Formats: sequence, C-alpha cells, structure tokens
Amino acid sequence: MTITLDNTEAQGNQLNALLTQIMEQYSVSDEEGPLTDEVEAFLAAQPHLTVRRHGDTVVASTNLGRQNRVILAGHLDTVPVIDNFPPRWLEPGDPAIRSEIAEAHPNDRVMWGRGATDMKSSDAVMLYLAATLTEPKVDLTYVFYDHEEVAAEKNGLRKVAEAHPDWIQGDFAIIGEPTGCGIEGGCNGTMRFDVIAHGVAAHSARAWMGDNAIHKVADVLNRLNAYEPADIEVDGLTYREGVNATLISGGNGTNVIPDWCRVHVNYRFAPDKTLAEAKALMMGEETAAAAQLGNGEHEATGGMFAGYGIEMKDESPSARPGLTAPLAADLVRLVKERTGRDPLAKLGWTDVARFSQLGVPAVNLGAGDPLLAHKHDEQVPESDLVQLADILQEWLG
Amino acid sequence: MTITLDNTEAQGNQLNALLTQIMEQYSVSDEEGPLTDEVEAFLAAQPHLTVRRHGDTVVASTNLGRQNRVILAGHLDTVPVIDNFPPRWLEPGDPAIRSEIAEAHPNDRVMWGRGATDMKSSDAVMLYLAATLTEPKVDLTYVFYDHEEVAAEKNGLRKVAEAHPDWIQGDFAIIGEPTGCGIEGGCNGTMRFDVIAHGVAAHSARAWMGDNAIHKVADVLNRLNAYEPADIEVDGLTYREGVNATLISGGNGTNVIPDWCRVHVNYRFAPDKTLAEAKALMMGEETAAAAQLGNGEHEATGGMFAGYGIEMKDESPSARPGLTAPLAADLVRLVKERTGRDPLAKLGWTDVARFSQLGVPAVNLGAGDPLLAHKHDEQVPESDLVQLADILQEWLG
Repeated sequence: MTITLDNTEAQGNQLNALLTQIMEQYSVSDEEGPLTDEVEAFLAAQPHLTVRRHGDTVVASTNLGRQNRVILAGHLDTVPVIDNFPPRWLEPGDPAIRSEIAEAHPNDRVMWGRGATDMKSSDAVMLYLAATLTEPKVDLTYVFYDHEEVAAEKNGLRKVAEAHPDWIQGDFAIIGEPTGCGIEGGCNGTMRFDVIAHGVAAHSARAWMGDNAIHKVADVLNRLNAYEPADIEVDGLTYREGVNATLISGGNGTNVIPDWCRVHVNYRFAPDKTLAEAKALMMGEETAAAAQLGNGEHEATGGMFAGYGIEMKDESPSARPGLTAPLAADLVRLVKERTGRDPLAKLGWTDVARFSQLGVPAVNLGAGDPLLAHKHDEQVPESDLVQLADILQEWLG
Repeated sequence: MTITLDNTEAQGNQLNALLTQIMEQYSVSDEEGPLTDEVEAFLAAQPHLTVRRHGDTVVASTNLGRQNRVILAGHLDTVPVIDNFPPRWLEPGDPAIRSEIAEAHPNDRVMWGRGATDMKSSDAVMLYLAATLTEPKVDLTYVFYDHEEVAAEKNGLRKVAEAHPDWIQGDFAIIGEPTGCGIEGGCNGTMRFDVIAHGVAAHSARAWMGDNAIHKVADVLNRLNAYEPADIEVDGLTYREGVNATLISGGNGTNVIPDWCRVHVNYRFAPDKTLAEAKALMMGEETAAAAQLGNGEHEATGGMFAGYGIEMKDESPSARPGLTAPLAADLVRLVKERTGRDPLAKLGWTDVARFSQLGVPAVNLGAGDPLLAHKHDEQVPESDLVQLADILQEWLG
C-alpha cells in the first residue's frame, strides 16, 4: 500500500483521506514497520524534503536556510487493539459517537478506532503539512517514530536522540499527543523505586520468634498518607506533584511471619527540580547519589523514606514548559485566538522531556481528546484535524 | 515386606527393630500406601485386635469391655526426603549425631533419617504396645493415618472422623507427635482471611482522580501494630495468641493508582474461644456468621478490621487441653515422675483438635525432639522410644 494525497481536493478531504489511510494500517507497538515504510515512501516523494531513517523512525527535513527550525513529532505506534480495528468513519447521528463529541460537533463525521486520538490524527496533519508546506517561514523537521507506547528503552525518539542528536536539533518542538488542540507545556518528572522493609521469618504460631516486615510497612504508608501534594508554578504554568504507592508485595507463605515487604513508589515531581534534587527529597542526598538503576538496595539516609531500603526502578527528568521563547509566544497567542485556550501544564511524563534534555524547548499540541487515549472507543471529530492544520499552517506557513 | 517382631528379644531391641522396619519403608505423603499395608497386616496378625481400614488409615481396637477407652494415634506419612532416605543407625560418637543429643544421650545409638522424629518413633512404640498390651486396664484404639503433612482436606484422620466417627470414640486420645516425651495439651485455633481495601484506579500522573487502596492499608497495619498478643490460661496451661499479616499484595501496574490491596491475616486464638467467638473479634458477629469459606467478600461490621472487606481462607477450631479428666491427671503425674516435665500448651494447630471436635480430650505425647521435625538431619536417640513405651505401658498396662 502507498499513501496517496490528491491536492485537488479540499483541505478537509485531504486530511480525512490521510487519516483513513494510516488508520487502516495496523501499527500496534512492535508491528509499526509496515506503516513506517509507507510514511517513509510518502515523505521521500516530496522533493523539498530530505528523508533519513533509523530503525522504524523516519526524520524528514526542509533545508531552506531559515533562521529558525521547528520540529513536529508524532509516534506511529498504538496500544493494543480491543475490538477497535479496523477503524471506521461514523456519520453524524451514529450511536457509537460519544455524547460529548456529538454535542460539540453535531455535523462532524467522526473517525473511530484504535489510534484515532493517540495519535494518528496529529500524524495525518503532520503528513499533510509535510506535503503542502513547501515554503515555510522556518525550516521544519518531521519526526515519525516507533515504540512510544511501550518501555522507554524501545522508544524510537530516544534512540534517534542518542544515535543522531543532530537530526532533531531545532529552536522549538511540538509533539502531537492529543491535547484537544491546546498547548500542554513541559512535563513533570517521574521516578519509581521500591521502599523495602526487612524482618525475621518465623512460624506464625510462634510469631514472637520473628519480626514482621509487613507490620513495619505501616510506617512507610503512614509517611505516604502524611504527604500533601504540592502545586508548583514554573514559567507561569502550575504542576501538581504526587507521591504514591502503586504496588505492594511481601511475605513468604500463609503461615510464616514475613521477612520482607516492598512498596513500589511513584514520585511525580515538577520541573523546578532536577532529578537529583527530587531523589534527595525521597531518600537523602547521599542515597540519591548511590541508588542508581540496577545498583541494588541502599538504605535511605534522609528524605521521606529515611531508614528504609531503596531500590531504584526507573527515573526520568522533568521538562520546563519553554513558553518564554519568542517562537513559542507566537504559537501561544495563535492557539488562544483560535481555541480560546491558555497553555496548561502537562502532568504525565511525555517525550517533550527528550527534547528538553537536548536543549530544545518542546510542548504537546495535537488533535483529539486526551481522555480518550487508549480507550476502546477512541474517536476524533474531523474538524479537530482541520483546526490543528489551520493553526500550524498559519504559524509556520 | 512384612513387619516382624521377635518377642524373645529385650524391649529396647524390639522397639529398635520395629523402628528400623518402618523407617526403611519410604512413606512420603501420597506414597504411604505400602507402609499402611504392612502396618495393617501386622495389626491383623494380633488376635486381640479388631482391624478396620478406611483409605490408607488403619484403626485397630481391643474390645475387652473396659470402662474407659484410650486412643493412640500416629501418622505414617513423612514430609519429602532431603537426602535423608534410606535411614541409618548412628553408633555413639558418630559425627552425624547432633551435639545436643550426643551430650544428653552419650551411650545411645541414634536413628537418623526422614521420619525419625516426625513421627515413626512414636509409631514404632504404638505398634509395640499394640502387639504386647494384650490385657490393658482400658480398651485401646490404635489409629495409623495418612496425609498428615499435607493439605487438611487429604488428612486421613479427618476422613475417618467424618466417615466413621464411631471408630475413634473414646475417653482420651494421645497423638504421638514429637514432644520429647512431654505432654503438650490442646492447641490454639487458627484462621486465615484476607482484609481487603478498595480504591479507585487512575493514572499515577493524576493521582487525585483516584483513591489509593494501598495507602488505605496503613490503617489496617496500624491496627495490627496496636494489637498486643494475649497470654491466656486454659485448664492450667498458657496459650499465647497472635494476629499477624503474613502476605500482602496490591496494585495494577507501576503507573496506576491501585484500586485494591489485600492483607492476608493469620489469627491464632486460645482454646478459651470457639471459632465463632474468635471470628467475631476480628470482623464482628454478623460478618463472622456470613463470612464462610468460599463465600466471597463481606464487609466487617465490627471487630479488629471493622469497615474492611473480609474473605475467609481457612479456619480450624482450637482444642482445650483436656487435662482435668481423671485418666489424663494420672498420665500427667506419671510423665512428671519419669521426665520431670509439666504439661505445656501446644501453640501450633495439630490433629488433637479433630478429637476435640468429637468430644474426645486429646494431647500430644511422643518420642523425639519437636525442633528436629522436618529437618534434613531428623534423628532420635533409642532411649526416647524406651521412655515413651515405659510411660504408656505403666499407664495402660
């Protein structure tokens, strides 16, 4: 299959045709290769673009010698299918259209199916811009990448950032994650670690011979309950932090006093803190320096979990919103004018942090309702694509 | 193979010969059939005994019309072998003899191997009594049963108690579990149940959209920590109770606010309480009546875990020591005279509770050190068998 585009059609029809074509190509993570091939071929057919590929990630750039360069990035993979592939267009009035979408867009056709919001609608808009914006005000780099919906180690954008950081350099980046065409800036950092209590095993008929590690964890959970989530303002946006136990396990058998218990804790921290500063708040500076991924258990010398064992499981820095740059300020004004929406802080960790680490300010801006991402009835009204395309065309064209 | 006994030999040699023969017959749980066959044939050859069999449990009785009947019971199965089969006799000075046994019994030969203490030594003594006590003061019932070391549902004594309760009626019962020839009376009851907290799942980047079930469990663990183990005297023996979490689990994923957490609790309660009374202390009377095994989750209306979900996993009643009966009082005096030992409370749950449920007072009294049960170097000095045989012969003969 080849992606085709009929530039004699109206803009809306072109966007819908692109969306239909990439929705119909199954691309659950690990199986995005065929869609990547099609996207690569489509971009390579545009004479004003230079196309490069690393794994299943395709990077296409204009090279017009403009003063600034903007990056538009979207992932091509989806989460697994739940009876929502192949996709279909729902005509106005179709009962499969969610009520809030039907109310807001009564005359729209709606694309339904896996990837509709996360994030093939934005991908379709970017492909449309790649084909039609032949003389943009800034140089443009399009990134279509793989493995966003799975473990970070597989992430195609991460791999390109490591292998070819020069391919994705620029002055500002947009990732098309669904935001309902609003700007969501920066992101909280996130880390996950086990808090570990140790005890002494014994037969539960003679409990006083042992030392119950699960009972000790009462203190860990009491500390979590005593924590009050902080709202932190960075560059004018408000980030809410959180420290939560997400998993717990412990014990050796139904009749054995447990000699271990682990609480898996997820700390989401605002972009006013470096990773090291955030770690120190959890486990003390000394332990933060020692407790690296894969480096085993360390006793927390300070912080919220002082005195317990800590084993790091995952860590990702936060990203500042980057809305103070002049290019970004223009975009903020334009989005406000078209949608009435002010920028919001992004709370979940997203790939904008990867650009942030390369020194490129980045925001999320995409079509579709973010609350529908990963849902079985993922769907997007056709006017969302037009709105996103109009904003980006005016900003870049 | 047939079990043989040469009654021209000295008592010690007869006991050792019986022990050797039943030790050499492998009888790990599920494979006790061949040993049961041998024991049945041996008992059937005694003209003063009536022998019955149910599954792999053999019951042999005298029927002399005595005023009282005493039951002597022993299980024939062992826990799995750990390089400790076949058994062997260790001569005095053998380095494989444990130091505490060598010090206490410097001139004894020692039987080493799987089942030596738990509980073929007592079985050997009972077989010896079965063959030699042809004119006892009381009627006797010998029970040799299967599947003691595995799940209660397979327990041979339980099956006979259900199918033929009349076979094991009597005025007093002794189970030959290893007690070093002391009396261990009654037993604590035990129950296991899950205490369940519910919450609302949410992405951990938006924790305030959810309700963290693991954090709620802080309160459950605080209640457990506030509990002070009680020492409770019943019929002159002291039983120590205990409430312990032995397992904990909860959570749906590393980045998800958990909507469930389960704490598996084990309550060991003294024989001053019925099962229903003990359950009411944990979950309130109403819930105790409703929360039966296999009957799902019920909210605790009272007790230690009031307000949480309760799912029963296991329940076994306690047993009073039964040492106030005249027959028992004689035995207590005799054991004290021969061993210097006063009766002790049994803390772990044992099969004495099955007799207790049938209205038969029961104690544990057997050869061998209970701390060696299930060890890879299980062993028993030969004089332990003689001591047990002497006590029972004098009491019953």
